[in-house]
Amino acid sequence: MEKMRIIEVKESVFANNDAQAEKLRNELKAQKTFLLNLMSGPGAGKTTTLMRTIEALKNDFNIGVMEADIDSAVDAEKIQTTGVRTIQLHTGGMCHLDADMTKQGLLELNTQGLDLVVLENVGNLVCPAEFDTGAAKNVMILSVPEGHDKPLKYPLIFTVCDALIINKIDVLPYFDFDMEKVVEYAHMRNPNLKIFPVCAKTGEGIPQWTQWLASQVRSWQS
Amino acid sequence: MEKMRIIEVKESVFANNDAQAEKLRNELKAQKTFLLNLMSGPGAGKTTTLMRTIEALKNDFNIGVMEADIDSAVDAEKIQTTGVRTIQLHTGGMCHLDADMTKQGLLELNTQGLDLVVLENVGNLVCPAEFDTGAAKNVMILSVPEGHDKPLKYPLIFTVCDALIINKIDVLPYFDFDMEKVVEYAHMRNPNLKIFPVCAKTGEGIPQWTQWLASQVRSWQS
Repeated sequence: MEKMRIIEVKESVFANNDAQAEKLRNELKAQKTFLLNLMSGPGAGKTTTLMRTIEALKNDFNIGVMEADIDSAVDAEKIQTTGVRTIQLHTGGMCHLDADMTKQGLLELNTQGLDLVVLENVGNLVCPAEFDTGAAKNVMILSVPEGHDKPLKYPLIFTVCDALIINKIDVLPYFDFDMEKVVEYAHMRNPNLKIFPVCAKTGEGIPQWTQWLASQVRSWQS
Repeated sequence: MEKMRIIEVKESVFANNDAQAEKLRNELKAQKTFLLNLMSGPGAGKTTTLMRTIEALKNDFNIGVMEADIDSAVDAEKIQTTGVRTIQLHTGGMCHLDADMTKQGLLELNTQGLDLVVLENVGNLVCPAEFDTGAAKNVMILSVPEGHDKPLKYPLIFTVCDALIINKIDVLPYFDFDMEKVVEYAHMRNPNLKIFPVCAKTGEGIPQWTQWLASQVRSWQS
């Protein structure tokens, strides 16, 4: 296996992240590359969900992946086995990526010819939600073991996301997780949030999620 | 039930958090109050573990609890049912508490006569680890569903903690979680880290953890 490229992205010098993000989004729109910002707490299953997503969509789209972490390259090495263009970003201890850090990553990844780039953000329900990365859409994963009260405790991330993937539904019998309540709480934060219950391990629910994502990419490109 | 007191703690004006933390730690030492800073990612089981801990130790120590969250008072309301002195801290969107914010909370809680105060920090594996709160000891919880690779991806929190509670061991059969590996990776970050596998839901492993904590409190007070 090719050695994983690890890029150290530097904290941004731009005061106005929103303006940088808007600029990046317009550039990506012009070159028909859809950037998905994927967020979750630690261990919610971003990488496994992403492996399934790539498997489902790699015949339809050219896909690239940027794995952001504080340390290690374990996620990027897993993603690399799918055959898509992948780099590992290290944030130098930072808990999130902003638009300029995302752009540094995209330049290293080389987005030419890519329809869909997934940024797997640092595992954190707080800080990543505060920074627009320039993504076309923001998606978060909440896993069943984390509990259904998370929209009450971490309001912003549910507000800024376009879709919520509820992962690890295979372990619902072993946890006190109320699916009706989580949907109610999440929609309280964001009435337009699309919700996809899935099990990334078994593939259950993945087609509904990937069909939605594919339609978003196509509409971005048209 | 008494209405939960919610305190809005304000971002600190002090540039030197380490000095503020050291000062607070000395004040707490002088009044024989042991402050425990309890950290984890979202949904790892801090509140349930804390309920078990209070149950085990409330006859031996006077206990107080500060629940820090970005929003909601769901955790503080749960803790209040144990009968210990409890307040909810709201961080105004901040992803962590620093020493001054902790002190604001302690003043509101009123530490007089308390042997043990637990600060349940914001659910986050990144930012809380960067700020010394003035605690006597730092403890983190990692839950089985989060995966055994977390010490590789979030090095700092494993480095700054004195003990690691591995929670939700009842669901070990349903997850690919390697207990030997997590111990190896965690000790790579911090060879002195005490590790306690527990199931807060059933109480398994709780005596080992609470005996250690009790011995730490007694040694702080002596």
